[in-house]
Amino acid sequence: MRQSKLVTTTRKEISKEEASINAQLLTRGGYVERLMAGVYSYLPLGVRVLTKIENIIREEMSAIGSEEVLMPAIQPKEIWETTGRWNSVDVMFKLKGAGDRDLCLGPSHEEVVTPLVGCFINSYRTLPRSVFQLQTKFRNEARAKSGILRGREFRMKDMYSFHASVADLDAYYDLTTTAYTNVFKRVGLGDRTYKTYAGGGIFTKYSHEFQTVTPFGEDIIHVCKSCAVAINREIIEDLAGKCPVCGLTNLVEEKAIEVGNIFKLMTRFSDACGLSYQDDQGKPQQIFMGCYGIGSSRLMGAVVEILHDEKGIIWPEVIAPFKLHLIALTRTGEEVAKADSLYEALRKRNVEVLYDDRGSVGAGEKFADSDLIGIPTRVIMSARTIAQNAVEVKSRNKKDGTNIGLDEFLTSVSS
Amino acid sequence: MRQSKLVTTTRKEISKEEASINAQLLTRGGYVERLMAGVYSYLPLGVRVLTKIENIIREEMSAIGSEEVLMPAIQPKEIWETTGRWNSVDVMFKLKGAGDRDLCLGPSHEEVVTPLVGCFINSYRTLPRSVFQLQTKFRNEARAKSGILRGREFRMKDMYSFHASVADLDAYYDLTTTAYTNVFKRVGLGDRTYKTYAGGGIFTKYSHEFQTVTPFGEDIIHVCKSCAVAINREIIEDLAGKCPVCGLTNLVEEKAIEVGNIFKLMTRFSDACGLSYQDDQGKPQQIFMGCYGIGSSRLMGAVVEILHDEKGIIWPEVIAPFKLHLIALTRTGEEVAKADSLYEALRKRNVEVLYDDRGSVGAGEKFADSDLIGIPTRVIMSARTIAQNAVEVKSRNKKDGTNIGLDEFLTSVSS
Repeated sequence: MRQSKLVTTTRKEISKEEASINAQLLTRGGYVERLMAGVYSYLPLGVRVLTKIENIIREEMSAIGSEEVLMPAIQPKEIWETTGRWNSVDVMFKLKGAGDRDLCLGPSHEEVVTPLVGCFINSYRTLPRSVFQLQTKFRNEARAKSGILRGREFRMKDMYSFHASVADLDAYYDLTTTAYTNVFKRVGLGDRTYKTYAGGGIFTKYSHEFQTVTPFGEDIIHVCKSCAVAINREIIEDLAGKCPVCGLTNLVEEKAIEVGNIFKLMTRFSDACGLSYQDDQGKPQQIFMGCYGIGSSRLMGAVVEILHDEKGIIWPEVIAPFKLHLIALTRTGEEVAKADSLYEALRKRNVEVLYDDRGSVGAGEKFADSDLIGIPTRVIMSARTIAQNAVEVKSRNKKDGTNIGLDEFLTSVSS
Repeated sequence: MRQSKLVTTTRKEISKEEASINAQLLTRGGYVERLMAGVYSYLPLGVRVLTKIENIIREEMSAIGSEEVLMPAIQPKEIWETTGRWNSVDVMFKLKGAGDRDLCLGPSHEEVVTPLVGCFINSYRTLPRSVFQLQTKFRNEARAKSGILRGREFRMKDMYSFHASVADLDAYYDLTTTAYTNVFKRVGLGDRTYKTYAGGGIFTKYSHEFQTVTPFGEDIIHVCKSCAVAINREIIEDLAGKCPVCGLTNLVEEKAIEVGNIFKLMTRFSDACGLSYQDDQGKPQQIFMGCYGIGSSRLMGAVVEILHDEKGIIWPEVIAPFKLHLIALTRTGEEVAKADSLYEALRKRNVEVLYDDRGSVGAGEKFADSDLIGIPTRVIMSARTIAQNAVEVKSRNKKDGTNIGLDEFLTSVSS
């Protein structure tokens, strides 16, 4: 992509209401733009990052046998009355549809998915089942001041599983834990994201969150360094300050951002919706469910909160909007032609490259923009490097670059 | 994908409220499930088709230089007051947000996109610009009885372009016409979809719809066979029954489904939002806009309305949920192993295949399911074909199949 054609530019001045680091950097970099508190547009660079994050989540959920569906945001009051939750979800947007019908924008999808998958469950042979969606969710948060970390409209992966026994649910819950760990590793947050014990509600002892440690987190967790798990502050007293895995008490208090959660619903929704399956004796049996969430837009915000410096964002390569940022510091027509031909050579090799071909912008401004946008590798072509038939390659997270011969460079990025 | 693992099965009985062909076939085939009138869940087969349609649209819009964005559904009242449309869009869902704030679910996005792209337009050098999104739209239709053809919640591609002159807008409008024609060709509706003249509003003589001829269409158009264009009934009297291209009057009246529309907005929204650019003399000038819609879920419904027979859907290969439907009519363990190994060989070659490995289902039911689901090519492996080291290959739209040697078959699908 030629940067001269890109819809967005970076910006120095942004709204003072953007207090969070993620919103500041993403807005200045041209990734997102706020429409109102908690409601953002994703600009071309932002769509590229969000799509890559969602594809990683899609791959990991598919790998554990979950099938992708897409459920509606608009939901009728009746299904929420069936489960007794119409008046119990305080962030629910309610609205009126044609014929004065009471509707809501689903803050989650248990009420839809349970009868939906239930249509197709009859004998024990049709279990287990798991479905997930990547969908836009709506929650009428009283306050929304954390950029894309806590939105009134946001992107979320929610997955729901259906099982013939608690043991089967338990096994899938563990499988999902591994899949979640893979997701957080792949987007660059693996080393500071902890499976965190949290309250379990009526039916189970615990649920689990995935919490990413950062000084800017809204949550407080207690990390057990020897087990690499954590405990949410909400239940630490119930546990008498002990790690539920090893029993040790030397836990470290940290601030953290919740990037995912998994929960055993047991028969809460399958019973309310009248679901059952026939066992191998033909007898009806209860169905055990789990639900598993990752906010994909929140995850994008969490990456920015953690992977940045004073100059801008530092994307991990797999979710960066482009793999390379080619910066032309060219003046003569001949130099421009050299940079153009490198850009074309990269495109021909299917390398994702943002090409700063802007003629009217100086080197200092190009470097500042590049640092802010945060593409992991910067490639400079200038009169100096052209004289050496080379480019200067610099990692976003390193101070100095290295000159590399043009052919060697092209070989290295193609492999 | 093994059919024994697929969340859905086909269904014989469906709600009597599903009057439209698209909803009947898509529901029976396990593609969609109605939550309420005009609001559908997309099941795994449905997500596969919808995603392929949306990727085709994405490719064609990107090919004409449009950049993908994602704008919010939730929009504040104020931006609709700026353009004077808060009370003029009768299908708008309105709701209250935190702090009793008036919000709507955007039925279209001119009010968001105009200031959004406007942020980045200053000199003539920053024009033209075009952005599109694939997003979920909400319209509070009084009646919604056409399955996924007319939804209260539906998927849509909307694109908006910004130009320095009417001539530049005109040129992009023509480019978009070609891109739209490509989309309808690729999804299998090319030979019966007409660029259709429709009312233009205040600023332009015409807008254009893309109308697909079918006996089940809601619209009436008049087709000029010699120009391969059509005229919407709404303006045929104004044109005195004449084709606006060639002037002939021997037009053919047809029923049709609107699958897309393109519209020159001129300066209607850019003026209302206070947008302008500086020309090469530094003087402020008006910005000319176009908007271009394709309902991607509606397009999926239109394909089903047209490409089906009494047995089920007949998907074009590029948007079919799978390329091949491998049907095992196997009894012995050895036969099952042969079919399994063919399935694995296809997967290894990255061929998208649905494998009907169900042991308890007879041949007749498997064939009926396959016809209903509508994957374009059916591949049968049975004791008979195994004896010949072959498979029987049959197109969904042909009556008879052909035996093909196993090696030859694998070579043919890999290329």
